[in-house]
Amino acid sequence: MGINAKDVARLAGVSQSTVSRVFFGGASVTEKTRKKVLAAAEELGYTPNEFARSLITNKTNIIGLVMKGVKNPFYPQVLKEFALEFKKLGYGILFVHTNNYEIEKEDISMLLKYNVAGVIITDAALSLYVTEDFKKNQIPLVLFNRKTEKQDFYSVGTNNMAAGRKIAEYLIAKGCTDMVYISGERNTSTSIEREKGFFDVLEKHQLPYKRYDSDFSYQGGYETTKKVISEGNIPSAFFAANDIMAFGVLDALREHSIAVPEETKVVGFDNIDMANWPTYNLTTWEQPISDMVQETVKYMMSEIEEYTGRTGKVKIPGQLIERKTT
Amino acid sequence: MGINAKDVARLAGVSQSTVSRVFFGGASVTEKTRKKVLAAAEELGYTPNEFARSLITNKTNIIGLVMKGVKNPFYPQVLKEFALEFKKLGYGILFVHTNNYEIEKEDISMLLKYNVAGVIITDAALSLYVTEDFKKNQIPLVLFNRKTEKQDFYSVGTNNMAAGRKIAEYLIAKGCTDMVYISGERNTSTSIEREKGFFDVLEKHQLPYKRYDSDFSYQGGYETTKKVISEGNIPSAFFAANDIMAFGVLDALREHSIAVPEETKVVGFDNIDMANWPTYNLTTWEQPISDMVQETVKYMMSEIEEYTGRTGKVKIPGQLIERKTT
Repeated sequence: MGINAKDVARLAGVSQSTVSRVFFGGASVTEKTRKKVLAAAEELGYTPNEFARSLITNKTNIIGLVMKGVKNPFYPQVLKEFALEFKKLGYGILFVHTNNYEIEKEDISMLLKYNVAGVIITDAALSLYVTEDFKKNQIPLVLFNRKTEKQDFYSVGTNNMAAGRKIAEYLIAKGCTDMVYISGERNTSTSIEREKGFFDVLEKHQLPYKRYDSDFSYQGGYETTKKVISEGNIPSAFFAANDIMAFGVLDALREHSIAVPEETKVVGFDNIDMANWPTYNLTTWEQPISDMVQETVKYMMSEIEEYTGRTGKVKIPGQLIERKTT
Repeated sequence: MGINAKDVARLAGVSQSTVSRVFFGGASVTEKTRKKVLAAAEELGYTPNEFARSLITNKTNIIGLVMKGVKNPFYPQVLKEFALEFKKLGYGILFVHTNNYEIEKEDISMLLKYNVAGVIITDAALSLYVTEDFKKNQIPLVLFNRKTEKQDFYSVGTNNMAAGRKIAEYLIAKGCTDMVYISGERNTSTSIEREKGFFDVLEKHQLPYKRYDSDFSYQGGYETTKKVISEGNIPSAFFAANDIMAFGVLDALREHSIAVPEETKVVGFDNIDMANWPTYNLTTWEQPISDMVQETVKYMMSEIEEYTGRTGKVKIPGQLIERKTT
């Protein structure tokens, strides 16, 4: 049942609309009345209801955040940064976990039902009807660390293709001649772009390379590497599309007593905290999470202020972090 | 500004209150009118606004979840399970990240402002005023994986003391004679209870033991173990208050070429996914996350249905998972 404006009005001896005016603005209220209302609200523990406010302003201070892969520590870190940044601006995060590769209809209706001020989608895919629903309702949408060719969105990520190129050049400079790329899920933009940049450079240098399809999971990196080893040709370097797959690569190599970086080298992607743990000490590409979050928040706030529906692809450069696996 | 009930009313050629009755109940509406309104809503992409509904029912379908330690993979997993369970029931999760040990006042006001149906607090501490605010507003509150002696709450966790006892008995049976406990933050109930159960048994067996204070982080486990090693007395077993500290213990031991489980043994707590990674293969205590989440959801839904403010401490047994570090 809770305390509501009616209770405050009764205790303060004023009308309910006066209470509403004190908290949500509108026609003016005398200072004496304002104080009476605030004292009554304080005594009862009444907090002006955001829902009531949203009926007047037709806006809420909630940002919907859709996420799939919480097993990859990269995403909880992203969640945390968004929560802290939006908190500073008085916004809360409605967290939606989607189990499937594609966002489910029920997830979208929840976001619409709560009249979210904006939506951020991290690692899940979108279908067309989703976009339509958000556009109709003028809800700004950002694809974070994902983009899509098919539809127009605002997306924020790192420059994956340039990173793939830099990693190839770095490994070539280290003397690597034949390389393996372990992909994430094949239909994700991040995995495709990292691969393209990587292979483009190897092709230009006429160096042999091979792709093994995996799934962005530790187990995927581990099993794939066992397969590579069983095929008998250890490449001079592995590039895994994210760090946790690279950890799987390193553990599989360790199990087969293949020395890193002497016999083969390993590079990951993300630079999550664990990449720095002594057991892995992984050379990797740092995704500039803070800058990516800042950029997303900036766009979101400007679209909340005034909706334009503008699209764009923002690519923030990262950097190679050299550690002991290369 | 988005589609609202007014737009739907205009297109359907009915009054706004008729639209409201179709979506939120109240006085009856003819089937013909209902269909007209639904068709107009469909055409415009209108979703009945949860805020409007909450003004009538004075309830929202939002659960506030307060979390601190997303660096420990245990908590993102907890978040995911809550999100999935509550989604089944039509509830969303308002995610609040608190940076400090104690929940901040602004976090509480956000939860109250959004009129959350209930609050779950995982690894942050509570002060008295927080409880008062929730009680006044009849908002059910659950401490998940935490409890407190000072105030009365409903708490759900595993039986930490019994787990600590079982771990001590297990290590004694394995021939361990002197042991080290690496604590989490000293003022957390989980760390205190695990320690108490563990030391109680060692005392009964008149075996020497020592506590090193740490902080539930990988770095904490790693640095503490380096300190233990530098002091020159390697104990026959380490019990770390969570898995990620145990990983730090194992990496520090590996760096000093101290063989596990031959020269010393290591036990963790939580059984996060990584405990099963070949590089660690950690013996640990499994926290029954799913059962703990189910229990929390059950209490929450019954208190949302009818608020009683009942308190209690639910302890769900876990189990020892034996792997290669013992």
